[in-house]
Amino acid sequence: MTNSMDSLSALPLRDDLRGRSPYGAPMIDVPVTLNVNENTHPMPGEVVDAISRDVAAAALTLNRYPDREFSSLRQELASYLGHGLTAENLWAANGSNEILQQIMQVFGGPGRSVMSFVPTYSMYPLLADGTNTTFIAGYRAEDYSLSTELALAQIQEHRPNIVILCSPNNPTGTGLELGVIEAVYEAVAAYNGIVVVDEAYAEFAQDRSRNALTLLSGRPNLIVTRTMSKAFALAGARLGYFAAAPAVCDAVRLVRLPYHLSAVTQATAVAALRHRQQLLANVDDIRAQRDRIVDHLAGLGLKPAVSDSNFVFFGGLKDEKAAWQYLLDAGVLVRDNGIPGYLRVTAGTEAETSAFLEHMTAYIETFER
Amino acid sequence: MTNSMDSLSALPLRDDLRGRSPYGAPMIDVPVTLNVNENTHPMPGEVVDAISRDVAAAALTLNRYPDREFSSLRQELASYLGHGLTAENLWAANGSNEILQQIMQVFGGPGRSVMSFVPTYSMYPLLADGTNTTFIAGYRAEDYSLSTELALAQIQEHRPNIVILCSPNNPTGTGLELGVIEAVYEAVAAYNGIVVVDEAYAEFAQDRSRNALTLLSGRPNLIVTRTMSKAFALAGARLGYFAAAPAVCDAVRLVRLPYHLSAVTQATAVAALRHRQQLLANVDDIRAQRDRIVDHLAGLGLKPAVSDSNFVFFGGLKDEKAAWQYLLDAGVLVRDNGIPGYLRVTAGTEAETSAFLEHMTAYIETFER
Repeated sequence: MTNSMDSLSALPLRDDLRGRSPYGAPMIDVPVTLNVNENTHPMPGEVVDAISRDVAAAALTLNRYPDREFSSLRQELASYLGHGLTAENLWAANGSNEILQQIMQVFGGPGRSVMSFVPTYSMYPLLADGTNTTFIAGYRAEDYSLSTELALAQIQEHRPNIVILCSPNNPTGTGLELGVIEAVYEAVAAYNGIVVVDEAYAEFAQDRSRNALTLLSGRPNLIVTRTMSKAFALAGARLGYFAAAPAVCDAVRLVRLPYHLSAVTQATAVAALRHRQQLLANVDDIRAQRDRIVDHLAGLGLKPAVSDSNFVFFGGLKDEKAAWQYLLDAGVLVRDNGIPGYLRVTAGTEAETSAFLEHMTAYIETFER
Repeated sequence: MTNSMDSLSALPLRDDLRGRSPYGAPMIDVPVTLNVNENTHPMPGEVVDAISRDVAAAALTLNRYPDREFSSLRQELASYLGHGLTAENLWAANGSNEILQQIMQVFGGPGRSVMSFVPTYSMYPLLADGTNTTFIAGYRAEDYSLSTELALAQIQEHRPNIVILCSPNNPTGTGLELGVIEAVYEAVAAYNGIVVVDEAYAEFAQDRSRNALTLLSGRPNLIVTRTMSKAFALAGARLGYFAAAPAVCDAVRLVRLPYHLSAVTQATAVAALRHRQQLLANVDDIRAQRDRIVDHLAGLGLKPAVSDSNFVFFGGLKDEKAAWQYLLDAGVLVRDNGIPGYLRVTAGTEAETSAFLEHMTAYIETFER
C-alpha cells in the first residue's frame, strides 16, 4: 500500500508539529547498553515467577475491563512509599511520561505554560508540545546547578503555570537541595501554580532521606512523580506514578483515559511491589558502580558531576562525539545528550561498568592526552 | 494527608475542565454484567496458557525498555487483518481511546475541530476536550441512521478537520453503508481533512466483508481503528490499533509517548493474535445471542435497532430508568445511555442472555402492558 503519495508532509498535521522528528534514543544492538539508564541487572528469578503467576491469574478474566481505579496497585504503592501516604494520595499511568502528560493536560494546555531548567529530561518540551502547553526553558548555573535565587528569579519573571524540578536532574544526575524545592513551591503556590518534582531516580540518591515526599504534607499544589523503570528494574512494564494530595488525583481523573492501566500492567506492578526486597537489593550495587565510575573518571582528569542517580554525567572531553563512537565501536553504547564536551553513562553491572571504564581509559589515553 | 484544603476546586484546573465529572460507566458488582460490551465468554484455557507463557518469557527482560516500534505486534496485526496490509500500515496503543487521542493530538488541537454524529461513542467529546480540539456534534436521522446526504450537508457546513464515523455505531449498533464512508471521505479529503472509521465491533457485523479496510488503498487520509477488547475478548489488556497509510503512522510517532506499549502488553497481544482461532470461535455464538435478543425484544413489542455489533440498542420503553433499575434489582446490569425510551444490552453467553430476556419479559409484562 506504500506509494509516493503517502507522504507525511501531505497530511494535515498540526502546524507546530511540522518538520519535527519523533523522540527516541537510538536503539542499537550492542553487548553493553548503558545509554537509557535502565537497570541492567538481570531480573531476580523469584520476581519473574511472581509476575508470571499473577499475570496468569489475571489472564483468566482479561475479557473484562480492568479495575479503572487500580485500587490494589495504589495501595501497594502507598505502602512502599510510606510517609503517611494512603491509596488516595497515589496515581499511576503507563510510564511517568503518561503521568506528566496527564498533569499537563489538566493544569497546562493552550494559553498556559510549563517551565523547567535545561539541560533536563528531554521529554518535557515534547510533552508540552503534545498538550499544547508553552514550554519555557529556564537555565541553570554554568555547572548545571540550580540555586534558589536563580530559580526564583526566572519563576518571578515568567510565572509559569507548572514548574517541573527534575531531582536528581537528568542528564546531570545531581539532586536538588530540599530548600530549593520549598522556596520554589512557596513562590509558585502563591499564584496557585503547580510544582512537579520528578524523582524518577530517587532510590539511588546519596542521601535517600532527602526526597520531596517529606514535603507533601500541607502542600496541595505539590506533585512528586516516581517510576518503577529504574530502581524496580521494570522499564519494560511502563509504570509511572505520583504522590500528591487526593484532589490532584481527582483532577487527573478528568483527563485520564478510562481503563488506562491494563489488568496485565496492574498485576505485573503489584507482583513487583510485593517482591520489592529482591528487586531493590540491586540498588546498592548500582550505587557502588556509579561511585566507582565517578572516581575512575575523575582519575582520568574528566569532570563527573555529583550523582544521586544510576548514571554519571561527565565533562572534560575534547570531542564527545569521537568518544561516543569509539565506545560504540568497542561495543559500549552511552548517551550523547548534545552537550559539548559531555557524555552520560548508566551504571551497569560490575562487568559492564568495567568494560566501559576500560574502553574509556583507552580512548582518553590514546586520543585526548 | 487528606484535609479540607485539598479540594479539587482550589486547584488550578484548565478553565474548560472546571465542573466536569470523570467518564465512567458505573462499576457495579452483579451476577450478569451486560453494560460495557465486553465479551463475556470465559477466556479459552489454551489462550490463557499462551499468554502466561509469553509474559513469563517477557518478564525475564522487563528491566529493559520495550521495543518502541512493537514490530512483532504490528506484523501479527497486519497478518490478521489481511487486505494486503503490512506492518508499516499498522499502529497500536493502550486501547482505542489512546489511538483516538493520538490522532486528535496530531491532526486536531487548538483551533481545529473533530465532528461525529450523535448519539455515538461518548468518549469522542471527552477525547476532544483532552486534546483541546473543538467537538462538533453532528446529528442523525430520527431513526439514528446516517445517510450520505445528511452527513455531507453537515460536513460542508462545518468543514471539520477530523470526521469520526463509528461503524457499527455505539450505542445504536448499526453499521454504515460503505457508500456513505466513500462519499464522506471524498468530501473531507477534498480540503485535506482526516476521516476515522471506528470499527471496534467489526468482527460482529452481519456482513463481515463490508468493512472500511477495503477502502484504504488510495485513500491517504483514511484511518480505520480497531480494538482487541471485543471480538478478541481482551478488554483487560487494553490494545487498540489502526490501519492506515504508513505516513499516518509516522505522523502519530510525533506525539506518541516513547515506549507507550509495555513489553507485557506486546507479549499478551501477540499471544492472543497467534491463538485467534480459539478466541474468535466465540464470535459466532455471540452473534447468535445478539440475533436472539433482537428477535425476542421485537416479539415483546420493543424496537431493537439492526445490530452489526455485540450489543443491541432498543427503544419503545415507556420508562427506561425504571426498566434499568428493575433489571439491576434482578441482578442484570445493562446500559442507560441517557436516551429517552432506550437501553443498550450486551449479548452475553447463552445463560446470561436468557437471564436478561427473562427479566426483561417480566418487566414489560408487569409494568409496560
